[in-house]
Amino acid sequence: MASNADFRFTSIVKGLPSGYPFTGPDTQERQSGIMFQARMGANESGFGPSPKAIEAMNEASHLAWQYSDPDNYNLRSALAEFYGVGHESVLVGEGIDGLFSSLCHLFVEPGVEVVTSLGSYPTFNYHVKSRGGNIHLVPYKDDHEDRDALLAKAQETNASLLYFSNPNNPMGTWWSADKMQSMINQLPKGTVLILDEAYIETAQDDVSPVIDVTNPQVLRFRTFSKLYGMAGARIGYVIGHPELISTFDKVRNHYGVNLVGQRGAVAALHDQTYLEKVKQKVIKGRDRIHAIAKANGLQSIPSATNFVTIDCGRDSDFAKLVLSKMLKRGVFLRMPGVEPQAKCIRVSVGLDYEMDIFEKEFEAVLKELS
Amino acid sequence: MASNADFRFTSIVKGLPSGYPFTGPDTQERQSGIMFQARMGANESGFGPSPKAIEAMNEASHLAWQYSDPDNYNLRSALAEFYGVGHESVLVGEGIDGLFSSLCHLFVEPGVEVVTSLGSYPTFNYHVKSRGGNIHLVPYKDDHEDRDALLAKAQETNASLLYFSNPNNPMGTWWSADKMQSMINQLPKGTVLILDEAYIETAQDDVSPVIDVTNPQVLRFRTFSKLYGMAGARIGYVIGHPELISTFDKVRNHYGVNLVGQRGAVAALHDQTYLEKVKQKVIKGRDRIHAIAKANGLQSIPSATNFVTIDCGRDSDFAKLVLSKMLKRGVFLRMPGVEPQAKCIRVSVGLDYEMDIFEKEFEAVLKELS
Repeated sequence: MASNADFRFTSIVKGLPSGYPFTGPDTQERQSGIMFQARMGANESGFGPSPKAIEAMNEASHLAWQYSDPDNYNLRSALAEFYGVGHESVLVGEGIDGLFSSLCHLFVEPGVEVVTSLGSYPTFNYHVKSRGGNIHLVPYKDDHEDRDALLAKAQETNASLLYFSNPNNPMGTWWSADKMQSMINQLPKGTVLILDEAYIETAQDDVSPVIDVTNPQVLRFRTFSKLYGMAGARIGYVIGHPELISTFDKVRNHYGVNLVGQRGAVAALHDQTYLEKVKQKVIKGRDRIHAIAKANGLQSIPSATNFVTIDCGRDSDFAKLVLSKMLKRGVFLRMPGVEPQAKCIRVSVGLDYEMDIFEKEFEAVLKELS
Repeated sequence: MASNADFRFTSIVKGLPSGYPFTGPDTQERQSGIMFQARMGANESGFGPSPKAIEAMNEASHLAWQYSDPDNYNLRSALAEFYGVGHESVLVGEGIDGLFSSLCHLFVEPGVEVVTSLGSYPTFNYHVKSRGGNIHLVPYKDDHEDRDALLAKAQETNASLLYFSNPNNPMGTWWSADKMQSMINQLPKGTVLILDEAYIETAQDDVSPVIDVTNPQVLRFRTFSKLYGMAGARIGYVIGHPELISTFDKVRNHYGVNLVGQRGAVAALHDQTYLEKVKQKVIKGRDRIHAIAKANGLQSIPSATNFVTIDCGRDSDFAKLVLSKMLKRGVFLRMPGVEPQAKCIRVSVGLDYEMDIFEKEFEAVLKELS
């Protein structure tokens, strides 16, 4: 019988834990046997994609016999125009995750140092580890990623990559554009800032520093998975220095992005009117989640994202209990993975009927546990 | 100004050539300024996906706000049932290319030896090289991949991976199931056979050896890109030993496959009646390409795929000239990359109107060059 030891996996792979960065909602439904009444855990946008994007996708399904364009030319051009940068400064990939995989392929090997926040995006760490990189974790400070401590750690370790999300997941917090620009200006020589802006479309106007593709030390990652409502299409993109961007072509899965998603994303990008409407719904939804927290005597964290993190007021065991009881009632939520943030639960803005369910069940669960 | 030398890419990445495994048809159209009248170069299926798959994709586009299932559970289950193997023996990825990327991540690092045929699938080699593996190339023999020489080379080099496509691309040739089983039985200890069966659905019944997922030395790669007519959906899969399959979970892009494609592929798999109809059209199309070659006094190679390779009767420069003249007339074709196969051109079965265009323009180009 074959055992793992018989396979000639690389030594790095042999040392990796088995399993997943995190479990998907569908798997949770299957494993728990509970169908979600309210899907408010993955920061998806239940408001859906623009009707124009759906129309474009339906037209494209008839063309699904054609290979998708490995250049993602039309989408790249649309994004380049949208941001006022050159075509050669934008790259499209299979979600931000797919781009992180290629990014780590480019930069990470044993002996390479990477800095990120403790409790930040696990899939980034997963891709770093799968290439044998060393991860240095910096705790959050007051529910924010700690810019100064991260910069100091990058300096101290001579880090090649420094991951930072703004707005932040899983806390929803943000730094202003000038604070971010100051961080960019202080980057140690040789460190590339991996600036994950997955939630930028739900943020206030002064959160995103100016995009400067002449700076070889910053890569900006954005996505159609969040406010654009196209998580299932798997379209992320990265904006940066042309030499950095073009080097992805040495390692990426060129035909990785699907044709239906490519066309849907172009249509979605061109429907900013729809996006603005959804943004207003998200802002209203955040307000409602804050109000529900308050009505239950709990603190919630101000958010620039499409979710709100609620401090359940006790320890992480209590928050876990709340989460599992909500799940049993068909309400899918998630929570931060590490202390001290893990005393919170994370609630994505849902449709009105989902918010109603959340409100009712949250109150009931808290009463049950009091 | 930043130059490549300033970036901290890994030493492997620094040594890689820039650019693409190969150029996509859309890029060729853009670069040449010629819109293809007949798209017969990428071995796509212009017959399209099953109408049931299109219906499933159109329904799914409304659900594109949801993350796709990282387990690909429904599609894996459908494939497992279809092949009569366990769910844990099947993995779905972003096309066979995406799976090759993960495969090489698992097995390849500097010092690892890999054997393949000279002129075989370039994207496999691309992924091996991007991990620093050593590739050993074995020439074709009589337009076939040379089983004995490949086995000998794998033995000699102590290869970790041996790539083999059956039916073969770019020649269209095949080996029978018993010949393949004999090759499997002779694999050197420690060598895993990467059996690329992208074209298996267009082959005769006796081409595919029995799928044996207890054998840890064979991985079978198949796709919805060819006869299923869903190249743009980017859905490939691999069947093999559960321990090998599960190890992909350590490195793959879990959320890489899109939701619309997942659902389309399940529907396509369940419509074998449609697939059989398309297969008959492909067989008829192959016959027609053979007849066109013959009518022009040229030899064509018997094919088990959805394309036919035509020997243009002179050297590779001549074949290249034919190809470029066909392109100028709006007929997109491709050709093998290396001698001696490069005296041929490769013609995918097209729709009737495309075949008419090919017939007319091919005759005209040959006359022009005679």
